[in-house]
Amino acid sequence: MFDPADHSHRRRNPLTGQWVLVSPHRAKRPWQGQQEETSDAVLPSHDPGCYLCAGNTRVSGDVNPDYTGTFVFTNDHAALLSDAPEAPAHDNPLFQATTARGTSRVICFSPDHARTLPELSLAAIGGVIDTWCTQSAELGQTYPWVQVFENKGALMGCSQPHPHGQIWATDYLPNEAATEDREQRAWFAAHGRPMLLDYVEREAASGERVVVETAHWLAVVPYWATWPFETLLLPRFAVQRLPQLSAEQRADLADALKKLTSRYDNLFRCSFPYSMGWHGAPFNADDAAPWQLHAHFYPPLLRSATVRKFMVGFEMLAEAQRDLTPEQAAAQLRAVSDVHYRQAAP
Amino acid sequence: MFDPADHSHRRRNPLTGQWVLVSPHRAKRPWQGQQEETSDAVLPSHDPGCYLCAGNTRVSGDVNPDYTGTFVFTNDHAALLSDAPEAPAHDNPLFQATTARGTSRVICFSPDHARTLPELSLAAIGGVIDTWCTQSAELGQTYPWVQVFENKGALMGCSQPHPHGQIWATDYLPNEAATEDREQRAWFAAHGRPMLLDYVEREAASGERVVVETAHWLAVVPYWATWPFETLLLPRFAVQRLPQLSAEQRADLADALKKLTSRYDNLFRCSFPYSMGWHGAPFNADDAAPWQLHAHFYPPLLRSATVRKFMVGFEMLAEAQRDLTPEQAAAQLRAVSDVHYRQAAP
Ligand SMILES: O=P(O)(O)O[C@H]1O[C@H](CO)[C@@H](O)[C@H](O)[C@H]1O
Ligand SMILES: O=P(O)(O)O[C@H]1O[C@H](CO)[C@@H](O)[C@H](O)[C@H]1O
Repeated sequence: MFDPADHSHRRRNPLTGQWVLVSPHRAKRPWQGQQEETSDAVLPSHDPGCYLCAGNTRVSGDVNPDYTGTFVFTNDHAALLSDAPEAPAHDNPLFQATTARGTSRVICFSPDHARTLPELSLAAIGGVIDTWCTQSAELGQTYPWVQVFENKGALMGCSQPHPHGQIWATDYLPNEAATEDREQRAWFAAHGRPMLLDYVEREAASGERVVVETAHWLAVVPYWATWPFETLLLPRFAVQRLPQLSAEQRADLADALKKLTSRYDNLFRCSFPYSMGWHGAPFNADDAAPWQLHAHFYPPLLRSATVRKFMVGFEMLAEAQRDLTPEQAAAQLRAVSDVHYRQAAP
Repeated sequence: MFDPADHSHRRRNPLTGQWVLVSPHRAKRPWQGQQEETSDAVLPSHDPGCYLCAGNTRVSGDVNPDYTGTFVFTNDHAALLSDAPEAPAHDNPLFQATTARGTSRVICFSPDHARTLPELSLAAIGGVIDTWCTQSAELGQTYPWVQVFENKGALMGCSQPHPHGQIWATDYLPNEAATEDREQRAWFAAHGRPMLLDYVEREAASGERVVVETAHWLAVVPYWATWPFETLLLPRFAVQRLPQLSAEQRADLADALKKLTSRYDNLFRCSFPYSMGWHGAPFNADDAAPWQLHAHFYPPLLRSATVRKFMVGFEMLAEAQRDLTPEQAAAQLRAVSDVHYRQAAP
């Protein structure tokens, strides 16, 4: 008899059309490979050597204002510039290049050098959400794609411990955006409803993969998750883009984010690394109805604060592979508190 | 005026249809993030605690023979098993799963615990190539896809310093295989020749991205490389699968592999980590003509032995991004010797 918690199988991601190999029995193997560094040190609230703290001078020579909420500035080493000259047309299909224009901004979440997202107050998290929304609205007037994201932790290439996120806007639809656009439009054409609105209802009804549930939001380990503790944060109402969120929906989102990221930190009692980001309808789309706004969380850890999942040989050359089922991962995240271990009453 | 070495642009990978963002000016930014550990220690030729050394006992209790060339065994914690029961059919397109059957094997490259691929003799590398070919032929009788690969270095999730590779065979075409199959077939239908045969000729003629050139093989940093020092190893003759290689083509491949991996180690004077693997026509394909055999090398390092490229937030959520051009990377790899620094005459 087939048992998904015991037998290898593949699951299909309907947002991308890609499959993932699930090998639940692999979690039993011993691990002799690389151990990550971990630190539970409490950082100072202000670090005079930090480029992102209020009042400090950056590499560029610019001085940060004495900000109190969030603070947004253009990345001093932006990967995208608004004025790149036009690339010449290539006629050979083996050597295709196009100009890429855009901008990259940094969002400091708060002046507090020591507090990551789950450790901020609900009001402060609300301020981050408002910044995501206003930045998206502003950049969306110029650029079809506005990628709001956060790389959290050194393990995820974050080069700066001061809690911050980024926004990269592009004058084109990047690969992932184009893929999700195609799949959501195909679903809508076939079923007449947004894919992720169907999905959120089924997940709420089943509960099996739910990690956090609030009045307006649901976080699940998706049925097709590739990273061990990957989650998908979904609105329980139809909405296409960040700036559309109402005040009430934003306040409830702050609650959902605080609970989700607190569960993450509590799982291995560490500042849980991840890359997260928002996907919504392209800002130049005439028809946004097939889209549903959502956030992906991609955390690398697998067994503990020091043992990560490596997406390497087979994964890079053939197909993503995971070592526990999404249902097992969701159960582990549900088994810990949604109050952060550093903020729990003793 | 557009200058690809200075202005951000996108390039298209014709094997996958995906784009990569090239931001050459990004290489100038300072790096304050994670530093990888590096060690230039020479390991012993035999380690009594190693699971892969000749004569030692593995976790499973099995004892390795006193092998002298390569040694192949079934992974003690295989991600794929040949007898997984049939998964029940799902009717909901949001919850699609299928059974995945296959096998995972380990290939010890040689009994020498201390010598990685570039440090082996040409004859010993030839033995590894022969093993890749015979294993592919054998597993290809049962499985449509046979993924030969190597994760080299702790940075690439290699849990065992003894030089070894792996083979995972599957009863289905994994994502990457299905994508390359689709793109190569479409190219062949449109142009009447294998895509990568056209490509290897153009790259040999231009020389701009060439890293290693032998009589029968060419290694280039492909025009669409995503990893900083990614290479594509290509035959300069039509061939679809590993087992078809002649004795002469194998001997020449050993030379090309030794030179390529020596250049890698010489670049930052370290054992250069990477994941590499072979792609060839699926073994169940009636028409293999559109395919051209090739190997991908995906190394993570960017600036030095201790600073890697992180494919994180923007890359995971939007599009792969690189910080130097493929042409610059190829020039750096050409500028170092193709004789390994540990084997160079003093
Ligand atoms: O070599 P191992 O220990 O079997 O495992 C390694 O390679 C596998 C195939 O790429 C990955 O799934 C693992 O995450 C990685 O640690
Ligand atoms: O935050 P940084 O330092 O700009 O850079 C980090 O995020 C970028 C966007 O995901 C990646 O391209 C870099 O590799 C990573 O180190």
